[in-house]
Amino acid sequence: MTVVIDLNADLGEGFGIWRLGDDEALLDLVTSANVACGFHAGDPLIIRRTCAAAVDRGVAVGAQVSYRDLAGFGRREMEVDPEELCSDVLYQIAAVDGVARSMGGRVAYVKPHGALYNRICRDPAQAEAVVAAVADYRVPEGGGPLPVLTLPVSAVREVAAQYGVPVVGECFADRAYTPSGGLVPRREPGAVLHDPETVAARAVLMAREGVVTAADGSRVRVDARSVCVHGDTPGAVRIAAAVRKALIDAGVSVEPFA
Amino acid sequence: MTVVIDLNADLGEGFGIWRLGDDEALLDLVTSANVACGFHAGDPLIIRRTCAAAVDRGVAVGAQVSYRDLAGFGRREMEVDPEELCSDVLYQIAAVDGVARSMGGRVAYVKPHGALYNRICRDPAQAEAVVAAVADYRVPEGGGPLPVLTLPVSAVREVAAQYGVPVVGECFADRAYTPSGGLVPRREPGAVLHDPETVAARAVLMAREGVVTAADGSRVRVDARSVCVHGDTPGAVRIAAAVRKALIDAGVSVEPFA
Amino acid sequence: MTVVIDLNADLGEGFGIWRLGDDEALLDLVTSANVACGFHAGDPLIIRRTCAAAVDRGVAVGAQVSYRDLAGFGRREMEVDPEELCSDVLYQIAAVDGVARSMGGRVAYVKPHGALYNRICRDPAQAEAVVAAVADYRVPEGGGPLPVLTLPVSAVREVAAQYGVPVVGECFADRAYTPSGGLVPRREPGAVLHDPETVAARAVLMAREGVVTAADGSRVRVDARSVCVHGDTPGAVRIAAAVRKALIDAGVSVEPFA
Amino acid sequence: MTVVIDLNADLGEGFGIWRLGDDEALLDLVTSANVACGFHAGDPLIIRRTCAAAVDRGVAVGAQVSYRDLAGFGRREMEVDPEELCSDVLYQIAAVDGVARSMGGRVAYVKPHGALYNRICRDPAQAEAVVAAVADYRVPEGGGPLPVLTLPVSAVREVAAQYGVPVVGECFADRAYTPSGGLVPRREPGAVLHDPETVAARAVLMAREGVVTAADGSRVRVDARSVCVHGDTPGAVRIAAAVRKALIDAGVSVEPFA
Repeated sequence: MTVVIDLNADLGEGFGIWRLGDDEALLDLVTSANVACGFHAGDPLIIRRTCAAAVDRGVAVGAQVSYRDLAGFGRREMEVDPEELCSDVLYQIAAVDGVARSMGGRVAYVKPHGALYNRICRDPAQAEAVVAAVADYRVPEGGGPLPVLTLPVSAVREVAAQYGVPVVGECFADRAYTPSGGLVPRREPGAVLHDPETVAARAVLMAREGVVTAADGSRVRVDARSVCVHGDTPGAVRIAAAVRKALIDAGVSVEPFA
Repeated sequence: MTVVIDLNADLGEGFGIWRLGDDEALLDLVTSANVACGFHAGDPLIIRRTCAAAVDRGVAVGAQVSYRDLAGFGRREMEVDPEELCSDVLYQIAAVDGVARSMGGRVAYVKPHGALYNRICRDPAQAEAVVAAVADYRVPEGGGPLPVLTLPVSAVREVAAQYGVPVVGECFADRAYTPSGGLVPRREPGAVLHDPETVAARAVLMAREGVVTAADGSRVRVDARSVCVHGDTPGAVRIAAAVRKALIDAGVSVEPFA
Repeated sequence: MTVVIDLNADLGEGFGIWRLGDDEALLDLVTSANVACGFHAGDPLIIRRTCAAAVDRGVAVGAQVSYRDLAGFGRREMEVDPEELCSDVLYQIAAVDGVARSMGGRVAYVKPHGALYNRICRDPAQAEAVVAAVADYRVPEGGGPLPVLTLPVSAVREVAAQYGVPVVGECFADRAYTPSGGLVPRREPGAVLHDPETVAARAVLMAREGVVTAADGSRVRVDARSVCVHGDTPGAVRIAAAVRKALIDAGVSVEPFA
Repeated sequence: MTVVIDLNADLGEGFGIWRLGDDEALLDLVTSANVACGFHAGDPLIIRRTCAAAVDRGVAVGAQVSYRDLAGFGRREMEVDPEELCSDVLYQIAAVDGVARSMGGRVAYVKPHGALYNRICRDPAQAEAVVAAVADYRVPEGGGPLPVLTLPVSAVREVAAQYGVPVVGECFADRAYTPSGGLVPRREPGAVLHDPETVAARAVLMAREGVVTAADGSRVRVDARSVCVHGDTPGAVRIAAAVRKALIDAGVSVEPFA
């Protein structure tokens, strides 16, 4: 039986005159594009161009929702009231879905970004706010809410089950893991891996055996249908290319999960 | 034959802790709510609550799209590149429509705000950018693009015809008119009328005879299916109440146009 | 010996078209104006007008520095990197001091706002970031750093001592206190007092005896040279007027501390 | 007699995670750094680091003031009320001057950015707003207002003379000129020159003979004590290096004007 995996990356993370990463090159490598929705990055023109480029290539579009924090790129945890957070997330999904549909695409999943992603893995109140927004958003075709990407161990999973929101497990090929299956915080040394071969080998292990080697050498399960590669690190394209090639060489089929 | 007219007002024009106008009271008087989309006013929580309050009362929801200018409340003309402006408008329509649909409502029309409203009455390039966004936005039910509110004499009309976008004429009961059918600029004395009886009488004339008395005393045609009352002026609620009452007393049926 | 106390309030907390509170009325009552610096509220025009109105009346101007969070009015705690926070605070102090000096005034003290105010009472890292900014800011006349307003029990005090930054104790006449001398969080019932007479009586007790009655009835010391009254609550002006009158009636001299 | 010229470039034009241009390399080549003040680019941390790097190298710091327009990078003309614009400019100068002084530097001049720069060359009302802000800003040492950089033909010159604000002429080595001494608008083909040798030769002509060859081949006077090289174009560093080298090779002394 063929192993199938999705490859996702953050895209459209510029703003105004500024750009981050080589979106065009990454779009030729990944199968899912987490499109920044305007709250941590991404103005409407960038969103539109990024969606168009993804739709052109058959890359699935995800809404990469975030705290409202352009100055901090969504990487600073915020004590946001759940009702406010829920509204912020709903607005972002709606905006990007509408833009994607204007060119024949659609938002196929939701991926919380940065500090919000990490926070809702352990904070049930903010997790519920995000999940409630996803549940509230009515996909025009009908057929139930969009899936949310999260970690194997995550507060999102319980609340998503209550709200009938599907969850898709995700793992990070270029991030160090704690023995309990969490990500080593970005500010710690060694938190982000930069060697393409190392990252690629981890991705293959993740895809084929569903595990990752944690920072202490132990093996941790990653219940993942999607592997994330980053777009904003130096050498991001080389890493994504190495991961894709290694997966295909290992007989893994790289396809959108959504 | 009964004369039918819509009564619209700008709503949800707060941001964060700030509020502008008495939305609850206005929503009991108008038939169409121009909901600020977040670019000149309106954060997602305010948008959500405003849409919910409108949907509850059967008031039609419009996307009140604007230049990106919170500090200037969208009242400062900007030299925005058409592709950028088009994307900004598309994003705003999509965001508010998605939020409104989450509670069973929908965006039924587009009303450009402030400086953008005035600019596109005379600038074909920016008018085309706005119209193109409306044409690009795919209403989930299908059935063609949303209608756009504009003045009787407006560059929007020609480009809308080219793009197959419906246009709905609008008039302003509390604004002074030039003899050529334009609005007297807000910064000029007498540009905004404040007496409820005067404004109400103008609204009745607009609805029943399709005309308004311009600043020089001449009568000007206003091809209007909707009368706008403002929500952010002192006494806005009293004016709106007077207009509504005068219309009904004059046998006019006040109904959403959309 | 005459007891002397300062009366401070948050002012200039509008943005663009929006206003919060009756600044003109409050400026006739207080002796120190905490002027919002643009990060949680306050655009440059509002800052300028507020400074001018304060200078006209001989009211001392303080820089009310905040997290960068217009949408949350600076009331949401944020995980900001200390170097970034330090720069944000320095920028805000500099901006408002320069504006105040353009009309012959000056910033005489620093008052952190909202979530930042509370956070730095208990977080030494963020407290140090704020204190370092105050220490870094070179007052044009020379003579050492500006004083910072904080609570009697506050992490700010230790770091300020290390940096040679003066601290001025502050108490809140209209806020409930915990038995340990902290403020009852704003979201809890009874956290904000609204009865002018009650608030005024507390202010007199604070000024004359240096104590406040906590939520559990116990008396807590408030080492305060300044009493804060809020400007953004309903009835703010009536409360401030009652406080000022009660203090004067009790023989307290109401004067700027700075 | 040695010809003396200043070499200025826009610096610190990142925001949050984003960067624009190679500031470190440019700072080794120019004698004046136009530091973005936070309205079109530049957050407080970037401002602080850019000022520190400039001060370290003895590069003069200028306040690169702009319209409030992060999304448009200050390149979109805006109809801003003069009182508002004046306040915006004053705030920006004050903020950057205070930050620069915290490390022993100071703002030595003002350079309007982008659309504002061009607008005030021909619009006396906005020019007056900017000049009034410069005149209002009280340089801590005393000694009169800061100088403003502008084109040889500019509405700034008349109002500056009225306000007692010094003006310093500037020319652009990498921009095409109209026969009347204005800049060819950025959106027109050939508006920005990219060849280092061409740009360098123009700079030498500007410095030594005070002229530039316009787009139609005619020679136009540029009354310039400072030559601007851009930092945000591809190859900016190579161009700046070529200009500096060519000037020195031609016997011109490259020194800050301020």
